[in-house]
Amino acid sequence: MSHTKKDFIYEGKAKQVYATEDPNLVIVYYKDDATAFNAQKRGTVADKGEMNNKISTLIFNYLIGKGIPTHYIETINEREQLVKKVDIIPLEMVVRNYVAGSMAQRLGLEEGAKSPVTIFDICYKKDELGDPLINDHHAVLLGAATYEELKEMYEVTDKINEALKELFLKANLILIDFKIEFGKDSEGNIILADEISPDTCRLWDKDTLKKLDKDRFRRDLGEVSEAYHEVYNRLLEAVK
Amino acid sequence: MSHTKKDFIYEGKAKQVYATEDPNLVIVYYKDDATAFNAQKRGTVADKGEMNNKISTLIFNYLIGKGIPTHYIETINEREQLVKKVDIIPLEMVVRNYVAGSMAQRLGLEEGAKSPVTIFDICYKKDELGDPLINDHHAVLLGAATYEELKEMYEVTDKINEALKELFLKANLILIDFKIEFGKDSEGNIILADEISPDTCRLWDKDTLKKLDKDRFRRDLGEVSEAYHEVYNRLLEAVK
Repeated sequence: MSHTKKDFIYEGKAKQVYATEDPNLVIVYYKDDATAFNAQKRGTVADKGEMNNKISTLIFNYLIGKGIPTHYIETINEREQLVKKVDIIPLEMVVRNYVAGSMAQRLGLEEGAKSPVTIFDICYKKDELGDPLINDHHAVLLGAATYEELKEMYEVTDKINEALKELFLKANLILIDFKIEFGKDSEGNIILADEISPDTCRLWDKDTLKKLDKDRFRRDLGEVSEAYHEVYNRLLEAVK
Repeated sequence: MSHTKKDFIYEGKAKQVYATEDPNLVIVYYKDDATAFNAQKRGTVADKGEMNNKISTLIFNYLIGKGIPTHYIETINEREQLVKKVDIIPLEMVVRNYVAGSMAQRLGLEEGAKSPVTIFDICYKKDELGDPLINDHHAVLLGAATYEELKEMYEVTDKINEALKELFLKANLILIDFKIEFGKDSEGNIILADEISPDTCRLWDKDTLKKLDKDRFRRDLGEVSEAYHEVYNRLLEAVK
């Protein structure tokens, strides 16, 4: 069944969202735009939109196969996905298997150590506040989620982490950390939304520890587009 | 039994610690020094050491009566307490009944609203890092505490909050928020340590909402020493 792209609804940092003739479905368009450090750094990465659309498609299909509820319906073309319309829960769920990024800075730790426990962070999605790290009580105070909804999201996030670690390992990649977002569909179900891609995951080559994710853009490491292509190609092989 | 003040061990921002002839006991000396904003602001408040010693004495005795394990043994004089020697767990346990201070800033909320749920924050005690807000997983990663120890500390902290709200209400004060610290005694028991005073609690007059705590120093509101005297005098009446 084909769906018609209608009114533009929303532009995010890396995607645009369009209505369709079905009020419960929207079309997501993946852009090449890249931002970092709360959008203080801006640029574009060649083919990023296309790669992230393809990588997200592959990962959503993989997770659906593992029983994870997602917003994903189908991939329309090289840049676009048809997904369920959701009300995004204004929390970034972050999972960390290794020490890196903002947590390394916050805790004064070196990047690259394996964490003895899986770290779950939640950040409040609010650009003006710099998406601050919060805890469950803050999320409830803010009305972002109830304690029960948080428990459900942590459980699903843990499952997603276990599934993704396995997938990426087949691609000879270490899943250092990642962030996901959940939304509520028209029936109130909490489902995985947004995207999963090298924009939202830290991925290091298992042998060389070469970074193959958005840190190449954030930290001006070069070969940014190449990294996105590499991740896609490896994942294609991994799911064969 | 009297104990002799021996070698100086440690100087904190508001207290000094001295050894005694008993390796399991130390003497805490309460100073008039006041610091704020990670010690960027420094000053002294007349009689603060004496008032905080007296207020902490009163509160420790009150909490011991409620079955809370603490480091407190006895008050020696106007500035000094004899307490159990503990290894301080490097976490600040913060409880918030109303929105104020750093949480108001972090979440972009107005000060003064009652929270529909009791908020528990933990901060990592590390001056170089600015005592950052962390979560349970970070605390475990840092080796500061195990999940089981955290659970125990949250439970005791909740009990302390309920007991203190009741006590301060008798003094016509609203307990907006407070921070406590725990330590491990020589037998490995987790017990309440440090102090509980207007340095570590936000206390507002129930009728006028006048601040009667260290925010008078932090925010240059004047009548700082008077506020500490006022809290002590009200608590003395409240426990009569």
